[in-house]
Amino acid sequence: MAPSDRPLLARADSQDSYREANEEDALLTGQAAPASESERSRWQKYREAGLSIYALLATITIIALAIVVNHESKRAHAKLPNNGWGEDGKPTGKRNLIFMVSDGMGPTSLSLTRSFRQYTEVLPKEDVLVLDDHLLGSSRTRSSNSLITDSAAGATAFSCGMKSYNGAISVLPDHTPCGTVLEAAKKAGYLTGLVVTTRLTDATPACFASHVNNRAYEDIIAEQMVGNHPLGQVVDVLIGGGRCHFLPNTTEGSCRQDDTNVVKMAQDKYGYNYIDNREDFDNLQARGGVELPLLALMADTDVPYEIDRVHMDDVYPSEAEMAELALNALEAASKDSAAKGFFLMIEGSRIDHTSHGNDPAAHVREVLAHDKAFATVLDFLNDSETPGVVVGTSDHETGGLAAGRQVGQAYPVYAWYPSVLANASHSASYLSHKWAAYLDSDAGQKASRKQKAKFIRHELFERDFGLYSILEEEVESIIDATIFWPPSWIFADLISQRANVGWSTHGHTAVDVNIYASDPRHAEALIGNHENIEVGKFLADFLEVDVEAITKELVQKGVRTHGSDESEWSWMGPTNSPVSEEGLAQSHEHQDIHVELLNSRSGGRFEAQIREDRILA
Amino acid sequence: MAPSDRPLLARADSQDSYREANEEDALLTGQAAPASESERSRWQKYREAGLSIYALLATITIIALAIVVNHESKRAHAKLPNNGWGEDGKPTGKRNLIFMVSDGMGPTSLSLTRSFRQYTEVLPKEDVLVLDDHLLGSSRTRSSNSLITDSAAGATAFSCGMKSYNGAISVLPDHTPCGTVLEAAKKAGYLTGLVVTTRLTDATPACFASHVNNRAYEDIIAEQMVGNHPLGQVVDVLIGGGRCHFLPNTTEGSCRQDDTNVVKMAQDKYGYNYIDNREDFDNLQARGGVELPLLALMADTDVPYEIDRVHMDDVYPSEAEMAELALNALEAASKDSAAKGFFLMIEGSRIDHTSHGNDPAAHVREVLAHDKAFATVLDFLNDSETPGVVVGTSDHETGGLAAGRQVGQAYPVYAWYPSVLANASHSASYLSHKWAAYLDSDAGQKASRKQKAKFIRHELFERDFGLYSILEEEVESIIDATIFWPPSWIFADLISQRANVGWSTHGHTAVDVNIYASDPRHAEALIGNHENIEVGKFLADFLEVDVEAITKELVQKGVRTHGSDESEWSWMGPTNSPVSEEGLAQSHEHQDIHVELLNSRSGGRFEAQIREDRILA
Repeated sequence: MAPSDRPLLARADSQDSYREANEEDALLTGQAAPASESERSRWQKYREAGLSIYALLATITIIALAIVVNHESKRAHAKLPNNGWGEDGKPTGKRNLIFMVSDGMGPTSLSLTRSFRQYTEVLPKEDVLVLDDHLLGSSRTRSSNSLITDSAAGATAFSCGMKSYNGAISVLPDHTPCGTVLEAAKKAGYLTGLVVTTRLTDATPACFASHVNNRAYEDIIAEQMVGNHPLGQVVDVLIGGGRCHFLPNTTEGSCRQDDTNVVKMAQDKYGYNYIDNREDFDNLQARGGVELPLLALMADTDVPYEIDRVHMDDVYPSEAEMAELALNALEAASKDSAAKGFFLMIEGSRIDHTSHGNDPAAHVREVLAHDKAFATVLDFLNDSETPGVVVGTSDHETGGLAAGRQVGQAYPVYAWYPSVLANASHSASYLSHKWAAYLDSDAGQKASRKQKAKFIRHELFERDFGLYSILEEEVESIIDATIFWPPSWIFADLISQRANVGWSTHGHTAVDVNIYASDPRHAEALIGNHENIEVGKFLADFLEVDVEAITKELVQKGVRTHGSDESEWSWMGPTNSPVSEEGLAQSHEHQDIHVELLNSRSGGRFEAQIREDRILA
Repeated sequence: MAPSDRPLLARADSQDSYREANEEDALLTGQAAPASESERSRWQKYREAGLSIYALLATITIIALAIVVNHESKRAHAKLPNNGWGEDGKPTGKRNLIFMVSDGMGPTSLSLTRSFRQYTEVLPKEDVLVLDDHLLGSSRTRSSNSLITDSAAGATAFSCGMKSYNGAISVLPDHTPCGTVLEAAKKAGYLTGLVVTTRLTDATPACFASHVNNRAYEDIIAEQMVGNHPLGQVVDVLIGGGRCHFLPNTTEGSCRQDDTNVVKMAQDKYGYNYIDNREDFDNLQARGGVELPLLALMADTDVPYEIDRVHMDDVYPSEAEMAELALNALEAASKDSAAKGFFLMIEGSRIDHTSHGNDPAAHVREVLAHDKAFATVLDFLNDSETPGVVVGTSDHETGGLAAGRQVGQAYPVYAWYPSVLANASHSASYLSHKWAAYLDSDAGQKASRKQKAKFIRHELFERDFGLYSILEEEVESIIDATIFWPPSWIFADLISQRANVGWSTHGHTAVDVNIYASDPRHAEALIGNHENIEVGKFLADFLEVDVEAITKELVQKGVRTHGSDESEWSWMGPTNSPVSEEGLAQSHEHQDIHVELLNSRSGGRFEAQIREDRILA
């Protein structure tokens, strides 16, 4: 039976009621309705065809949109091609963070060193340092009590993310301790390390793993650093100088006030693997894997300046070599951890010292050594399977260094002379030591003023500085130097004059310092101009660690462990730190050492030598 | 008739052939097929329901995907919310570009001025300058022939995007002219402007709209700047000082060598609207619309230092006021252009002069005035309907300024004192002029040494500098000053010493200088450390103008228009510019003026005054 045989007004069965009802409505309103089974089928076909077309178009649209979404998504992620990086520029899981401090390096250091390198290595005028290619912005450095910070308050800003007074080693102006990013990292399961070219007990490294009220308490710092600390042992790799603060005062080479053997404490109580010489260092470097924790004390006090070190038959490792040992050790030790990598602080510590000495020839070599260490870290990050970032900055500028100087009253030429710095093969400090040793020698003690002048001219200025234009009165000024303006400062001033390099002070200045990072996309928060505490906050944020919890723990455990009647914070030493008054903000260490040296010996020259070596903090 | 009444194997009519055939196939393959009309309808219903569900799901998917696309797209564009900006951070059509030069401002200027402002305005320690919030990176400043650039080579790097020798005004080391971004902008249909606080004929503005072989040819520069130039008139708004170079030497207040009336030339030949006083300036400002081109010569030579200007009953407009007039004039004049906006260069010219004078109290006020001008430009950009960018940088640092200084032999305290700068109400230059005027006065000529000393102590140091701790020998040093170390340098040194602010030179230094922009997203190419020529290239890129085409046009038209037997480039003046030897890189201007002044007069003090005013270039 054909559909057309159906009675015109027959009600459809209820299963077809919707369509049938519509058709009925159409009929009732006088519109044409499917008159037969055939028409009904055609309508169905159209409807189905429409639905099919719609479904097809929808499918095509979905595919097109999916392509767009995929494209947009790829574009959004194009910035971060590496595995393990999230959209926010931070690693999604395991990560490493290296923080590099160029102590005392200001903006002029870069310009000076860049041009020096172009000159000595015969590079084009456009050639730049490795650091230059990684500039992000700058950091404002003032401390809580002065427009000019010292390294202690500067490093506390990095370690705790808080401003404090000059001289403070990760304690706040109210003399309570503040948790550091290194301590928080250790507690969170990261491995940790500190690498410096100065004493490990000096302000910058101290701030990451100890808490004392005054940076001068280096004996206490040494003990805290190896584990005699409310939180126990927190540093897995310690490489640097400052051995004298770890040895008991009954031992040769000690500079401790007491007979505590901190090396033994480190080994016996906290399980440190200890080395103290180049051979062991090289063996560790060659071996690859290093048993942690490691304490490597590579010098009595500071590792020598790079300009002197390179003429020393390789007794001391360079900043880059120490950095490499630490990186490899930490990488190997954290290899099996799925969740946590490491936090390592590396300091080009003695850039600061060259500037305290106003010694431009030593300065540019020290900055180059730090630049090389930065390159070493970049190489490591490129090769590592773990996502990582290196962030670098300075705590402050030292010396008021200027690449341009007016010597005398004549209007200054617009030039400075890298060739003068290139000709020098030693630091002003080295010349000064050599001069002191000559005076102490038989020859020196018997020498006439004329013979002394000859020694100064030929053995010091000419041989070590490559300076042949020194005037007679300039030679005389070395012979007549006193503790108040010691020989090394005169040596440094004379080479600075010849190079047209200027200095405003043997202390620090308040200029903003540069911020660097391996990749701006991984440190976007540090692009532009920032307060130095923002650098500290970045470190904790990157590692996703809780510094405040550490502060609480320190306050509790510090009191419980070390509290006494004298002072509840006695574990951090007396609170005789500088008052928080602007203008009296000088770190006590400088005054203390100055007074100490003035009182301890007499005679002039030799103390001057010691003073100038120690005052450079 | 119910569907079930249909014969089981009846062939369906052809209209239903697809479904029927399927049913038949199902039957032939032994699978159950709809046995009745009712079953067939149910199958249809399922199929339709399936299609409907598919279509519904597809629709939902499309909506979801569309939301995702929209979201992703919004996220991608979230960076650039303004109308008229493309994905690359550049405007898609009409645009404005403001380029701000902080002549002689180095990194220390920011730290010094920021702390000074915090002190004087009692702001928190975290308070920053407007510039600080817009730091992008830094610029390497060396010129083609020296590690230390002058302003001419510095500005040529910006205007042409090319390195040249110290003293070069948009000419290359081979003494051919290089097209400037301002000339290219004008040719491309942009309106153009130059605003400065020094002479409009000084190196920085000169480099944008003139070409001479030596910056000392300011008379030629004045003529070129108003249109006596191979390309004709290229600057629509000229506001600044330097009127003396536009007036014929037959007129009072002229400093031209010849009797050319450049003001008249500008008015008659090139159609400039000319003003030369504050009243006219204020009228223009109030009126809003300004007929272009405009030549506003607001001072004989330089507009006074900000520290002095604010005590002068408003004779001279500030940098911000001049910037505002230029911005409004250019905005109004380019309003009807659908395609092109304007290019405006604004210079905080005299920051450099305060540093040449080593005058920290004047310096911080000059930087603050520039910071205010920067804020004015930001406000303009925010309000303008045309997408625009302000980029700021310095040509070089001046003075080797240091926020920290060792005064005497004692180890320096870690502090400097903004209060000392805050107490000063005038510049060292002002004190020096006042001292010279006193000496020329009846009272001064009759005064005893003691009376002179009294004047210096009370009328200069105490009244104008707020310095009450001046020693007797310091007062004497002013009386005994000579041309070789003039009074203003001594005034400046004494206030610097009291503030613990250091300087290394009265000339320039080689430190990298800061780069700023309204928004880093619109100047991504300038994030980080850059050669100064990259700033110049950014300007041309942003405007999408062809500087090389201008160079070709200049070479052709320059020869044709101005060629002579003497030299084919004689329109740019003689080629006696400094030889390209490092160490002899000093700008000729300084030497010329020095020699000229030494020869021109005798007697000492008053020449010293003139010399120190003019030497600051």
